[in-house]
Amino acid sequence: MKVLFLCGGHGKRMLPLTDNKFLLKFLGRTLLEHQMQIAVDAGLMNFILVCNPQSYEQVKTIAEKFNSATIEIAIQEKPLGIANALESAAPLIKEELMIVNPNDIFDITAYTSLLKSHQHDKSVSEILGYRVKNYFPGGYLITNNNGDLTGIVEKPGAGNEPSDMVNMLVHLHSNPKALLQYITKVETEKDDKYERALDAMCKDGILIHVVPYSEAWCAIKYPWNVLESVRYFLDHTESYISPTAQISNRAVIEGKVIIGDNAKVLENAVIRGPVYIGPGTIIGNSTLVRAYSHIGANCVVGFASEIKGSYVGDNSWFHMNYVGDSVLGEQCNFGAGTITANWRFDKKIISVRVNGNPTNTGMDKFGAVIGNNCRTGINVSIMPGVKIGSNSIIGPSVCLTEDVESDTIVKLSASIRHIRKKFNPRQNKEEPF
Amino acid sequence: MKVLFLCGGHGKRMLPLTDNKFLLKFLGRTLLEHQMQIAVDAGLMNFILVCNPQSYEQVKTIAEKFNSATIEIAIQEKPLGIANALESAAPLIKEELMIVNPNDIFDITAYTSLLKSHQHDKSVSEILGYRVKNYFPGGYLITNNNGDLTGIVEKPGAGNEPSDMVNMLVHLHSNPKALLQYITKVETEKDDKYERALDAMCKDGILIHVVPYSEAWCAIKYPWNVLESVRYFLDHTESYISPTAQISNRAVIEGKVIIGDNAKVLENAVIRGPVYIGPGTIIGNSTLVRAYSHIGANCVVGFASEIKGSYVGDNSWFHMNYVGDSVLGEQCNFGAGTITANWRFDKKIISVRVNGNPTNTGMDKFGAVIGNNCRTGINVSIMPGVKIGSNSIIGPSVCLTEDVESDTIVKLSASIRHIRKKFNPRQNKEEPF
Amino acid sequence: MKVLFLCGGHGKRMLPLTDNKFLLKFLGRTLLEHQMQIAVDAGLMNFILVCNPQSYEQVKTIAEKFNSATIEIAIQEKPLGIANALESAAPLIKEELMIVNPNDIFDITAYTSLLKSHQHDKSVSEILGYRVKNYFPGGYLITNNNGDLTGIVEKPGAGNEPSDMVNMLVHLHSNPKALLQYITKVETEKDDKYERALDAMCKDGILIHVVPYSEAWCAIKYPWNVLESVRYFLDHTESYISPTAQISNRAVIEGKVIIGDNAKVLENAVIRGPVYIGPGTIIGNSTLVRAYSHIGANCVVGFASEIKGSYVGDNSWFHMNYVGDSVLGEQCNFGAGTITANWRFDKKIISVRVNGNPTNTGMDKFGAVIGNNCRTGINVSIMPGVKIGSNSIIGPSVCLTEDVESDTIVKLSASIRHIRKKFNPRQNKEEPF
Repeated sequence: MKVLFLCGGHGKRMLPLTDNKFLLKFLGRTLLEHQMQIAVDAGLMNFILVCNPQSYEQVKTIAEKFNSATIEIAIQEKPLGIANALESAAPLIKEELMIVNPNDIFDITAYTSLLKSHQHDKSVSEILGYRVKNYFPGGYLITNNNGDLTGIVEKPGAGNEPSDMVNMLVHLHSNPKALLQYITKVETEKDDKYERALDAMCKDGILIHVVPYSEAWCAIKYPWNVLESVRYFLDHTESYISPTAQISNRAVIEGKVIIGDNAKVLENAVIRGPVYIGPGTIIGNSTLVRAYSHIGANCVVGFASEIKGSYVGDNSWFHMNYVGDSVLGEQCNFGAGTITANWRFDKKIISVRVNGNPTNTGMDKFGAVIGNNCRTGINVSIMPGVKIGSNSIIGPSVCLTEDVESDTIVKLSASIRHIRKKFNPRQNKEEPF
Repeated sequence: MKVLFLCGGHGKRMLPLTDNKFLLKFLGRTLLEHQMQIAVDAGLMNFILVCNPQSYEQVKTIAEKFNSATIEIAIQEKPLGIANALESAAPLIKEELMIVNPNDIFDITAYTSLLKSHQHDKSVSEILGYRVKNYFPGGYLITNNNGDLTGIVEKPGAGNEPSDMVNMLVHLHSNPKALLQYITKVETEKDDKYERALDAMCKDGILIHVVPYSEAWCAIKYPWNVLESVRYFLDHTESYISPTAQISNRAVIEGKVIIGDNAKVLENAVIRGPVYIGPGTIIGNSTLVRAYSHIGANCVVGFASEIKGSYVGDNSWFHMNYVGDSVLGEQCNFGAGTITANWRFDKKIISVRVNGNPTNTGMDKFGAVIGNNCRTGINVSIMPGVKIGSNSIIGPSVCLTEDVESDTIVKLSASIRHIRKKFNPRQNKEEPF
Repeated sequence: MKVLFLCGGHGKRMLPLTDNKFLLKFLGRTLLEHQMQIAVDAGLMNFILVCNPQSYEQVKTIAEKFNSATIEIAIQEKPLGIANALESAAPLIKEELMIVNPNDIFDITAYTSLLKSHQHDKSVSEILGYRVKNYFPGGYLITNNNGDLTGIVEKPGAGNEPSDMVNMLVHLHSNPKALLQYITKVETEKDDKYERALDAMCKDGILIHVVPYSEAWCAIKYPWNVLESVRYFLDHTESYISPTAQISNRAVIEGKVIIGDNAKVLENAVIRGPVYIGPGTIIGNSTLVRAYSHIGANCVVGFASEIKGSYVGDNSWFHMNYVGDSVLGEQCNFGAGTITANWRFDKKIISVRVNGNPTNTGMDKFGAVIGNNCRTGINVSIMPGVKIGSNSIIGPSVCLTEDVESDTIVKLSASIRHIRKKFNPRQNKEEPF
């Protein structure tokens, strides 16, 4: 059985973070590596990685880390959806095929329950279903009394749900070649060709069994989902402090903490887990890291900073900052006094513009989303829910209330020049202020 | 003997703090409770509380705490002064009556010296006098050689003082019904009817003996008097750390400190007394509280903040702030980087606008006066002597140089929008700043 | 042999720091004292101090500290260069004379190597030469095969250097009276009269031997050279903590540190040497001083501040500040939240305006240059390379991007007033931000 990972799409809703979501790093490894490792742990050893041309090199590098597995790579030229991904990988698809969306985070039981169910009758396909309490913008699964699929309805809209079971993209196809034929026959301009093919198959009487799954599931669709993912990974790992990490005996380490090789924690720093500190990262004097924070490799969290509930990419630098409930890419550098605000005065839920539309994060504490290679000046204020595109610069003293595109400089306008006037400090007669 | 506490006035000069000054809390109890307790300690057991309609419920609740005392409550419909307060309570006034202004803070000796003097001749009334060195805007007492009152002059103005003895409102009347009759006869539109009645009485030959008092006296008239009151209470209490308080062994506690039940002091915090920390309050990592600070109940003084010489009401939150020589109400919430400036560049005495008039605080270090339920954004600067009315919001990055009314939002104006321009970070040819 | 120290010039390029560079204090003593001490250590005991009228009193006070030496003071009325300085001191000049620029910092070997060479033939003059790799804006020495001077070319410009040996102003003249006569004969309006005299002398066949020197040499010409001087002095001294200094056992002291009498280091402070802390200075709670910082006497580095790689004059106060790679005079006072930026977004070398011309500091990390008696408000941002003249005030919330003259106030202009609007906090219907 081969496992096909869908790495060919572009997650535009994730911008300014990487649109190749499976390349996001957690606990020092990309999301794709985590997914492949779970599959390996479930006894699966043959992988097809369908990637886009942009991520090919990175995917190849990841593949090379899995020596004991057999890995094939297919390139999907354009992000035209799952059906197109399968078509791109068609020559590699033989008999049984597991299709997996690596941008969903789930437990190993997703695989094992599917495989176990598959033991009963290897001619039946198996797909994973997740019972939801509230509306979820995905595909709803309709089943008969035997738990076999009778139809799929994509994003029916709240109130129109045909069931409470949504489609999780961990699908085991017993006859993937038949699936490909069905795909060929679907006529649509939309990107739900794959789901329509499944719908057509089950309506033709092909058995597709729905296996319920009720463990952890975290779908990374929006930048703030990264914070939920950090929670997942920190909750599902053990404390570990590398023997090469240098922890001052005047530092405080509390709770579940993972500290990488050669990291340093200086005097009077406090790390209150669950927290991940990547290899080579320095946590400076009088600095506080807490509440499900995830700091990448080779960062410097300098003097008197606080990182709370945030995700920070590799090689980022801080100094006298507050980073709260924020998601930052790699190689960011904050000037001293830069602060991310993380709640509204009216304490309402914070929304973030995604493709131009205000989108509810569901969180009343949320900070900024900042792409790679951004720099801020000193005493910068960044409002809740603001996004800053990669390679952008926010000048000193700016109070940033709106999103910033990539490759952009934001600075105070000339209209706020200062008044200068002479006074006599010896007489000190005039009131200076 | 009954003790009548004058709780019916409205201290407008205290705004945006409570105008019912006797409801200000020190060491976890209202000022009125402190005053009643001192009276109880002096052996007095019968109280009349004259309150305004607005404070009736709170006064009743306070009264219920004194089980062993007999307490009657009278309502003064309008804040028309002492004479009117006495008239409002007339049905409750029988024989000997002590009249006390609970907004003055004084020692138990104020009562005991009055009572002791009263032993000599119970037919003589006794009033307390305080010898001043500088002009004080109160009533000046003129006495004969026997120390008996011969006249009162209200606020004569500096240079016109008829004596150096000012009236302190702890008065023991041997015949309060006669006093009420005198009050009826005074014809004036001003609010000194009571003092005029006393003046008339002594001029009619009724003996009113002036008992000198030279212990601590702190009259709460203006917001900054709250800081003097904090000094008084901290100087007159003992160190106490509740056994239920959780103090990190990496915290530093020094000097006289009172820490309430279930308070928490986290690692690397420094509390340098005299300091009061209310019950349930959390003092965060790397935070400094010092120099006669008084922090109410259930506050959070978060990471890397300093509170110096300030009064903070219950349920207030701080985070990376400096609060210096300031007086804050309840439920205030400061964004990270909000700082109260507490000295002028010219090092002059700081003045505060009271009823529209700049009023000298007598202090060269004084910060802000902030009402209940105020919130500030990140990186806010608040100038010395500024007042912020209750329920107001100061937006991020604002430099506040003027008073703010209640229920008001202050934010940066649209005219300071920022310049945004595209640049090419790869070429990096153009000088970005 | 007399040693003549040239203290008569005005180092305008050093403004807003003292233009009497030899009065800059390092390790608690003026530069001139250091220089005289080195000369004493080299066995020299007779000094002529040529000073300007403005510095006379201070020079006299310094002279009085050297009891065992014989010291004469000459006044140079106007800063007309070395030749004029020698003419001013002519009556005091007898036989052998050493001429020294005290604004150059060098090792004792500068003296000893000159004196040793002089032993061979006391009739020959000896001057110090320093071999450079890159262009240096000084006098280039041309020598013959015997190492004797054949000519001097002042500032030839990069690419036109006649040798790689530059003139260091530690010169031993065997016949200074002849030198004075040569000076008389030079006709020029420029300030290189002394160098022209030397040139003329050697061209007349008078032997002037060039002694190579290759030890430490730090020429103080520009404000940023003060930071190099701090490095020199800290590298050339031993650790010392005064027995009267009070160091909390919760403070961290690391590396080479000199801490003066009665200094205090409070809890959770970290001093990471090489660092100098002057007598009477207080290092506050949670404060960090590091990386070749030099803090004068009686300063207060208050709560949660960081001083990195900076020079700070006496009696300066800080509080919640970051001072990085900066040079500050005496009696400066920073409001909380004032930050000096010390790198450019484009990571280029930082330049400083000197006499109106942008001048390369050679450093990619450099902060501000601030004269004596300056004050900043809260949340002030100061850009890299900015200079602030003495007695100036920078108002709160200002982002300072340009130099400020002395005796000047800079404040936010009226055009950035704030919007105030009423809202109903109870309804909270309207979105406040």
